[in-house]
Amino acid sequence: MKSKLLLGDSFPEEELKQVTRYADIYRLGEMDDGELDAVLSSIDCVLVHLWPERLNSTRVSKMTKLSVIQSGLAGVNHIPFGDLSREVVVCSNAGGYSDEVGEYAWGLLLAAAKRIVRLDRDVKMSGFKRASTLEVGRDVLILKGKVLGILGYGGIGKAVARFGKAFGMDVIVFSRRATEERGVVSLKGRAGLEKVLRDCDALVLALPLTRSTRGMIGGSELALMKRNAVLVNVARAEIIEEEALYRRLVDNRDFVYATDVWWMKEGRESYSPSLPFLKLDNFIGTPHVSGPSAVVGGGPSRMAVRNLLRFFRGEELLNVVDRSEYA
Amino acid sequence: MKSKLLLGDSFPEEELKQVTRYADIYRLGEMDDGELDAVLSSIDCVLVHLWPERLNSTRVSKMTKLSVIQSGLAGVNHIPFGDLSREVVVCSNAGGYSDEVGEYAWGLLLAAAKRIVRLDRDVKMSGFKRASTLEVGRDVLILKGKVLGILGYGGIGKAVARFGKAFGMDVIVFSRRATEERGVVSLKGRAGLEKVLRDCDALVLALPLTRSTRGMIGGSELALMKRNAVLVNVARAEIIEEEALYRRLVDNRDFVYATDVWWMKEGRESYSPSLPFLKLDNFIGTPHVSGPSAVVGGGPSRMAVRNLLRFFRGEELLNVVDRSEYA
Repeated sequence: MKSKLLLGDSFPEEELKQVTRYADIYRLGEMDDGELDAVLSSIDCVLVHLWPERLNSTRVSKMTKLSVIQSGLAGVNHIPFGDLSREVVVCSNAGGYSDEVGEYAWGLLLAAAKRIVRLDRDVKMSGFKRASTLEVGRDVLILKGKVLGILGYGGIGKAVARFGKAFGMDVIVFSRRATEERGVVSLKGRAGLEKVLRDCDALVLALPLTRSTRGMIGGSELALMKRNAVLVNVARAEIIEEEALYRRLVDNRDFVYATDVWWMKEGRESYSPSLPFLKLDNFIGTPHVSGPSAVVGGGPSRMAVRNLLRFFRGEELLNVVDRSEYA
Repeated sequence: MKSKLLLGDSFPEEELKQVTRYADIYRLGEMDDGELDAVLSSIDCVLVHLWPERLNSTRVSKMTKLSVIQSGLAGVNHIPFGDLSREVVVCSNAGGYSDEVGEYAWGLLLAAAKRIVRLDRDVKMSGFKRASTLEVGRDVLILKGKVLGILGYGGIGKAVARFGKAFGMDVIVFSRRATEERGVVSLKGRAGLEKVLRDCDALVLALPLTRSTRGMIGGSELALMKRNAVLVNVARAEIIEEEALYRRLVDNRDFVYATDVWWMKEGRESYSPSLPFLKLDNFIGTPHVSGPSAVVGGGPSRMAVRNLLRFFRGEELLNVVDRSEYA
């Protein structure tokens, strides 16, 4: 008997074609509420990027046959774990975005370290005074021989480490799993985190948003960092405490935060944060395009669908999430 | 007998200290015209970053003992070759800036490829529409698997190639000298240049401004490049024809030019070009800070002075320029 897959949003048709051999596909976008309610009890898997508002608690509670949710995104913090029965297996799409998001992270890091965003704006606003070239040269962070910190050492972290090594940086990583990789020092626990924060000249956040990483970087963590460090976020904004970061940026104009991810407002990322980050010279923000830059290439969708195919074929699923980290 | 060194501008005192054993140092900034004119005929070497206005043709013609000019800058296009007698040896400071300028070039390349400057501005001006994330994702240039072109393969070009390889790019180089380096294809001549222009997704200019490179990238060269290529200039603006580039940028909004170097106006680089580049979305400009970011570390000065010491000790000079390329 075929599976019944609820498709939450858009995936490439050529990938979905492979699914049709094993499952009937119900497309959320093409069903009215009545049609949706009629199929809920027979759905056994869901494939989705962002969790759809229409799949609220009531509806999820009616999905009594649900056994797998495959996320199209690398992060699964958007999945309503609290609504799911214990049997539901949730798979992330970790690794599907590694190269593209890693490249993007390095772009943010360099744009910040080399003061490119600020200098370009100064030149365009005719605000640049020639006499200050050497001063500005002093502001530019040279990466060679400096320390690159990475929090989280999955696919994105590994790509970032590769770039850091090519730039002649010493790479130190905070990760649950130790790594034996040459040229990478891997640390654990609170003391490990503090050492990474203290030693790094540039820090890239590349870990999932879980119960233990939410608010992980607060005032006391930021206070450990170098005065002129660069902090890059391609993970999730909520790993950082918004107010603590704002204070840090206001009090330390040489500290730069460069982010592609934003705090949530009304259930979605907002590009206008509650605090006036956008007015700060030492804040660089792009509207969460690193993931989409990977999506357009098709890689993440292929990977998500391939994992679902493993489910249909009775093979072991990859990227199964430890639900206790999210509940 | 000691040499007589004319110091055109500022170098670190700790470097100059080593010179005093071999030479008396005459500091241009501390002499009035009378004092300067009095020593010209006894000067045998000059150490300078930018060529000083006060050393005009008349004065240079009086420097009858001059045998070496050591440039503090990597490029020597600012040296008044036409005024120098045949015997004067001119040394560039090529290699002194490689790591820092290479890093900066990669920063410009990523800021352009990842649309970071434009997106940051859009977000800050509240001009970013959420619905267009995937569209923007489509605009973001993924570097992995793409082609990196480099014109000029000295120290800066080699650093850039190293970064390109770490990003998984195919590297093709246009250079007078062939290279046997793994993962780098080196081409020569007009056909070689055209192949690099045609094939590359990102192109970095890292060659000196000479008689043969001035205006080397004009309308027909730009026309060979991909519609959405990124062109990075950390060499000299004059390698590119200003008007042809302006047309290219206006006609091709997906083509991005990111530069740290500017065309000259009244003898110095001007951050307000004659054509309205600064109004273009696909123009990124920083006020020539890549060199200064190296200078503040002291590396280039050390290298320039070390070459002068070779002269004083009768050793063979490095980085001797072929004057026929500049005359």
